[in-house]
Amino acid sequence: MTIKHGGNIYEVAKKYGISEGEIIDFSANINPLGIPNKLKATIISNIEALKNYPDPDYKDLVTAIAKYNNIDEDFVIPGNGATEIIFKIVEAIKPKKSLLLAPTFLEYERALKNVQSDVIYYLLNESNGFNIDKNDLLEKLEDDIDLVVLCNPNNPTGQIIEKDTLVEILIECKNKGISLMIDEAFIEFVDKEEEHSLIRCLADFDNLFIIRALTKFFAIPGLRIGYGLLSNKNIKKRIINKKEPWTINGFAAICGDVLFEDYEYIKKSKEFFRVERENMYSELKKLRGLKVFKPHANYIFFKVLEENIDLKDRLICRKILIRKCDNYVNLSNSFYRVAIKDKESNAELIKAIREVLYED
Amino acid sequence: MTIKHGGNIYEVAKKYGISEGEIIDFSANINPLGIPNKLKATIISNIEALKNYPDPDYKDLVTAIAKYNNIDEDFVIPGNGATEIIFKIVEAIKPKKSLLLAPTFLEYERALKNVQSDVIYYLLNESNGFNIDKNDLLEKLEDDIDLVVLCNPNNPTGQIIEKDTLVEILIECKNKGISLMIDEAFIEFVDKEEEHSLIRCLADFDNLFIIRALTKFFAIPGLRIGYGLLSNKNIKKRIINKKEPWTINGFAAICGDVLFEDYEYIKKSKEFFRVERENMYSELKKLRGLKVFKPHANYIFFKVLEENIDLKDRLICRKILIRKCDNYVNLSNSFYRVAIKDKESNAELIKAIREVLYED
Repeated sequence: MTIKHGGNIYEVAKKYGISEGEIIDFSANINPLGIPNKLKATIISNIEALKNYPDPDYKDLVTAIAKYNNIDEDFVIPGNGATEIIFKIVEAIKPKKSLLLAPTFLEYERALKNVQSDVIYYLLNESNGFNIDKNDLLEKLEDDIDLVVLCNPNNPTGQIIEKDTLVEILIECKNKGISLMIDEAFIEFVDKEEEHSLIRCLADFDNLFIIRALTKFFAIPGLRIGYGLLSNKNIKKRIINKKEPWTINGFAAICGDVLFEDYEYIKKSKEFFRVERENMYSELKKLRGLKVFKPHANYIFFKVLEENIDLKDRLICRKILIRKCDNYVNLSNSFYRVAIKDKESNAELIKAIREVLYED
Repeated sequence: MTIKHGGNIYEVAKKYGISEGEIIDFSANINPLGIPNKLKATIISNIEALKNYPDPDYKDLVTAIAKYNNIDEDFVIPGNGATEIIFKIVEAIKPKKSLLLAPTFLEYERALKNVQSDVIYYLLNESNGFNIDKNDLLEKLEDDIDLVVLCNPNNPTGQIIEKDTLVEILIECKNKGISLMIDEAFIEFVDKEEEHSLIRCLADFDNLFIIRALTKFFAIPGLRIGYGLLSNKNIKKRIINKKEPWTINGFAAICGDVLFEDYEYIKKSKEFFRVERENMYSELKKLRGLKVFKPHANYIFFKVLEENIDLKDRLICRKILIRKCDNYVNLSNSFYRVAIKDKESNAELIKAIREVLYED
């Protein structure tokens, strides 16, 4: 792969000669409550499912996604993780010119480069806490832009865009014939997610394309399951015409209900993050050498003020892996992203950062 | 999905009001020995693997594939089933004009249409047992062709191309600047596969692209795992640059060794097909109403001579599903493909066909 993401503990383990199991991985934003037990039980009792081709239309999965989101089944395209959907929507829209946040998740730009799209950036400012400035962004929406990509909450900054703002952007896009792809892969971690998701706008806006993932919230990056939501029938048809068959494996195909109806897991996770996000944020804020940006999802973005400290290198010797954000557009090598993990690991991370900053 | 393949028992079950479990599915060519027990045990004991992102470079899987095939690791690209690799190789080559067998597996043409390739057909003749005529094919290799796609053994006809012939085609392609993609998804079912595979030509021919699957031989269509083999560094680079990350799930990522080193399963499977293929072939040949083509893989292709019989419809009432081949180019609706399943099921199929042909 050409792009470095978080979560590649394999490479790190090899590079530093540490076994993977010893590393506490804060570089991937995965729910520390772990794989839901009901999913594990489902996989084990359905292991024979592997001997059949999955349903090429993934009807059960589509039904489960539609029910969970309370939307029309026709709006759903299930995918091999969110990334397949990102690539396929971009391929179907084939934008000549696209507007991206900077910094933001790296695969949007890769998908856009695949279709030779020109990419312009809306630069997020540190001074504004990496939040967008609505009027400023609206001014950037020129007629020759074909696609705007937003990520809400944004990865890696953790900042959220208010719904009123989003709706204004969506309307302006619609008026100017611009498609809006919004990645809500982390929306389920946000308090009152329904107040932030654009999902209820789908029926009225055929220029809206929403990306969702099960990866992070249900702690299953290895299962590869995500989905796209759209009401635009032409684009959907184009995606289906071009899509490879059976990109979703047989376990992922049958696990929709099991995950979406695991209300206990969902409730427990939301409650955990509501509390632990505040805890960890306030603990990190206490560290004088850091500038911490208010988190809204399951990860925290911060800057190390002392320029000579490579926090990633310093922590890896303590067998802690964090995400250094130096390969994002518009970020210097002083920025880092850490996942919110279990309380014990989080305390260990904070202790280790404190030691690096104050005691080394 | 826009193309009908075998193996879609979901749709059939729904259409005919039969539960999926009741149908004996001869439409998907899956090894009846079933999922290897060692794989099941590996998945169950590694269920926690799902909570990590797979290694984006899939190094363990690549190593296992290279070892199994006794080739350079650099030649290997692992994929989400063979289909991902077919699509990605075609995308990277971007042929303007391509030559396909007719009939052959349907996804090649879909992948080619995705890149707007002109497609011309080498029509296989019933009178020649759907075998290629070497000289005739060599004549068709005009300079303006960019890509030739072969499938060996061919799906759905089950016919095999001799290695001498293949090498002659490969050399002629090389001389004329034509890429040759050859799908060996069923090669492991062939007696003396090493006498038919082009794998040993890889190092010397950078115009050769081999497709392999684990799906059929290891009975795991639901796991989604296949691979491409190539020595062409430019094409490989192009594929890797364009490839979505993590298309292979976490279980598939760790199962290479387990499957490739399950020598008992491999031996037992090869022995089973060597014997049962001959049995079933000779039983089918006894049925006067059929013209049966000599099988070389794990499926048998035949024609129903009486034009008014729709054998698929007649068998589905007996809860047997076979592959009607009427959506292949160059095949009428009298052609069918059946998988070689366990002895008992095969006997049931033959009994049912006999009843339909003679007693109805």
